[in-house]
Amino acid sequence: MLSLLDAVRPTTFIESSKLRDHLGLDLTIVSEAFQHTGSFKFRAAYNVAINVPNDSVLTASSGNFGQAIAYACKLTGKKCTVVMPETSAQVKIDAVRSFGATADLIDVAKVGRIERVAQLAQEMPEAYIASPYDDEFVIEGNSTLGDELADKDFDCVIVPVGGGGLISGVIRSFCNSGVTTEVIAAEPLLGNDGARSFKAGEIIANESEPKTIADGARTVSLGNLNWPIIKDGAKDFIEVSDEKIAEAMKLYFGLVNLKSEPTGALSFGAILEQPERFAGKKIAAIVSGGNVDPDIYRRLI
Amino acid sequence: MLSLLDAVRPTTFIESSKLRDHLGLDLTIVSEAFQHTGSFKFRAAYNVAINVPNDSVLTASSGNFGQAIAYACKLTGKKCTVVMPETSAQVKIDAVRSFGATADLIDVAKVGRIERVAQLAQEMPEAYIASPYDDEFVIEGNSTLGDELADKDFDCVIVPVGGGGLISGVIRSFCNSGVTTEVIAAEPLLGNDGARSFKAGEIIANESEPKTIADGARTVSLGNLNWPIIKDGAKDFIEVSDEKIAEAMKLYFGLVNLKSEPTGALSFGAILEQPERFAGKKIAAIVSGGNVDPDIYRRLI
Repeated sequence: MLSLLDAVRPTTFIESSKLRDHLGLDLTIVSEAFQHTGSFKFRAAYNVAINVPNDSVLTASSGNFGQAIAYACKLTGKKCTVVMPETSAQVKIDAVRSFGATADLIDVAKVGRIERVAQLAQEMPEAYIASPYDDEFVIEGNSTLGDELADKDFDCVIVPVGGGGLISGVIRSFCNSGVTTEVIAAEPLLGNDGARSFKAGEIIANESEPKTIADGARTVSLGNLNWPIIKDGAKDFIEVSDEKIAEAMKLYFGLVNLKSEPTGALSFGAILEQPERFAGKKIAAIVSGGNVDPDIYRRLI
Repeated sequence: MLSLLDAVRPTTFIESSKLRDHLGLDLTIVSEAFQHTGSFKFRAAYNVAINVPNDSVLTASSGNFGQAIAYACKLTGKKCTVVMPETSAQVKIDAVRSFGATADLIDVAKVGRIERVAQLAQEMPEAYIASPYDDEFVIEGNSTLGDELADKDFDCVIVPVGGGGLISGVIRSFCNSGVTTEVIAAEPLLGNDGARSFKAGEIIANESEPKTIADGARTVSLGNLNWPIIKDGAKDFIEVSDEKIAEAMKLYFGLVNLKSEPTGALSFGAILEQPERFAGKKIAAIVSGGNVDPDIYRRLI
């Protein structure tokens, strides 16, 4: 079985002269779109799979974590069950099944995701219940992306934020290696619980799942393990409108040849929201993943 | 002024487990979509710009070579004129102009591209007339991509072919370093002059510019300097239908998160045409570039 560092694909650094000239900024794109299963989530998922003693893993995810944990379990010979709304895109259901995992499809009008996971956990008491962000193995797995950035001498790194799994991993890595690069959170304006929490100094949750196009950031709140790391280690939050997310995706398409998913474009969207604050700095923008439905992508480019 | 090797961005190697599982083949994608100006052409263009003594460069290109030579001339402080049909996509005209080059727009019903270049050459006798493929500096510049593949132990490398500039560079590199990796040409079926030439043992030209969606391969014939290198060094030609090019682009989008232009997808299209011949081999497919108009891309994904 491969170690975490051997299993993970190195991230892709893209220095686009067209985009730099367009913005007048020293921007490096750090893309996880070519990571296994198309997003950074594989880093976390594989670290869960190789570290938990359980032979089966259970999670709820209609998105990137579901695919990532299904693939990680395939590689490590574990059983995997992913609870997904039955309305999930067929391509996502197929992806989970293609890795040999069980896609447990639910009617969310009848049963909530958390409730269904609890039901299944009773039926499968031996299974490890994996959170996509609120888990020490997840944070440790994601810290490997921070390690790839640590020696690059960036003034700031901008990180898409939903539940806070990736940004807490990056902060953890930078703390461990004594790197002083600023870490800035990019969160959808329509789901700005993190920004409000950061201002208030305590976790504040959204009342319901936010309706942003950044589907990977439709979380109700930051995770309990992620929050203290973010509270102490993030420099700031930038709230990104869906319009700026769309603009970022279109510019990635036109100037960089980069296919980004909406959530992945949050970091560049943050620059479009507040370009003046990045002038003269050496900036890295993390693209957390590239998985986006063709119908949505067609509309946005 | 940067040397060729310092100016060129390293290529991007993508090992997609989803695509490998889908095909059942050991395929590595070698993408030039993140090269400067979005295609491998920058390798050739920069090598022209740093090697010719002339202070100005003249070329005819509605596509990737025009952008690449315009940017290379910007970096090296040379003047650049690119003859383009006035019907070229505005985004391509804008790109050439954004690098400070002159876009010389012609009505192709009234004057041919070669004729217009000849006119301009008389007005600018000091200018170097750069061919996108039929030029020793072009072949030498493109050989740098071959050098990046030379030590990777591939059984075969599949290369998109229009005028033959890239494949002759790759063959040249492999010959120089004694690498025995097979080099296979992937050419549009609708513009199969190269395949016909290879069979006949002499250059055969298309009667007119072929109407394939692979706009970077709408050449009338292989270049005179490229032909002997290809004739002796290529293992075979595979003719790729426009349907297989489109299928390859769609699979790149869905399984790899890779934005490829139609010409860039020729190499994967060749695998889709003849998958059986690649079974058990360690294959590299070169994606020559990622520049594609959003309208075309929307239709194809």
